[in-house]
Amino acid sequence: MQFSPLISALIDAFKVLPGVGNKTAQRMAFHLLERNREGALNLSKVLHDAMEHVRHCQRCRTFTEDAVCDICASAKRADSGLLCIVESPQDVLAIEQTAEYHGRYFVLMGHLSPIDGIGPAEIGLDTLAEQLAEGGINEVILATNPTVEGEATAHYIAQLCREHGMTASRIAHGVPVGGELEYIDGNTLTHAFQGRRQL
Amino acid sequence: MQFSPLISALIDAFKVLPGVGNKTAQRMAFHLLERNREGALNLSKVLHDAMEHVRHCQRCRTFTEDAVCDICASAKRADSGLLCIVESPQDVLAIEQTAEYHGRYFVLMGHLSPIDGIGPAEIGLDTLAEQLAEGGINEVILATNPTVEGEATAHYIAQLCREHGMTASRIAHGVPVGGELEYIDGNTLTHAFQGRRQL
Ligand SMILES: [Zn+2]
Ligand SMILES: [Zn+2]
Repeated sequence: MQFSPLISALIDAFKVLPGVGNKTAQRMAFHLLERNREGALNLSKVLHDAMEHVRHCQRCRTFTEDAVCDICASAKRADSGLLCIVESPQDVLAIEQTAEYHGRYFVLMGHLSPIDGIGPAEIGLDTLAEQLAEGGINEVILATNPTVEGEATAHYIAQLCREHGMTASRIAHGVPVGGELEYIDGNTLTHAFQGRRQL
Repeated sequence: MQFSPLISALIDAFKVLPGVGNKTAQRMAFHLLERNREGALNLSKVLHDAMEHVRHCQRCRTFTEDAVCDICASAKRADSGLLCIVESPQDVLAIEQTAEYHGRYFVLMGHLSPIDGIGPAEIGLDTLAEQLAEGGINEVILATNPTVEGEATAHYIAQLCREHGMTASRIAHGVPVGGELEYIDGNTLTHAFQGRRQL
């Protein structure tokens, strides 16, 4: 015995969500059927619209339903001459929330990973090269993740910048503010010492 | 700065799912946008269809898109004269998977909870009373959860059965098979002693 065909299909359909197995999918299906059909119908509609209409910003590659995202459309951002390179749209949000940076972004939507067939073209570096050649950018800030792949990607892009006679900087790695030294891993501590500055 | 309106709407829409907060909703939205638009469109469609077409079985109250569920439609099940009372459709699945029980079910879709305004009518006991009066049922098996509410609900229904001159039994509570005695809570152990049988 199984649940009815439509309920079984719903449980299966939920398994496309990251980290959702059979038990969680069941819980989601019954929760919505029992308690929130209106919310579920809204999710169905928005999910459809988003999958049909969200694409990549023509300039920075982040996700947006417009041809060009709000940040890329801002003349003030363009005038800054700054371009910050990140791996994901979520990274853009994190940086924007600091309210410290007012330049443009370029979103790689990943990082170099030759083993997985992800080379420079897959992370949009041809588009980036065109933008570097166009002019109007004074400094490129490399804010890829402090992982092996993120570092390799940053170094690759720094080389690309040099080829275009452009300065590239890397965001500082070190002890997180409020972090306790004894709990910081050795690699981070090494970066913190190497990046020390005179007071 | 926020994500684009459509992406923000998608993230919000995911929060109708149980246990899904802002971070998880973001992860779901970007995972589907990046990696599985087809799966997301399928989820959208099935979600819509299920919310529109799934209703309660006219006989046992479980969820189904048909007027009467497969189990209630089976003459063999009706002939058994057994009616097992459970709290949820998932409980039906769990019992069916043991392949030990071949009677009908009645699904309360909850339990008595006067504080939350859930009385006998809300868990379908008027419908149950009609079925008891109809005849054809020889034994009612109470398989509500071994919680305070589940026990109270079982006792209420046992009384209803007595009023219809019907035998009601309660499934046994005790030490789970394969469980280690030292890790079993005292309440369960008490039940296990009270329910002891001669070998
Ligand atoms: Zn953009
Ligand atoms: Zn039924």
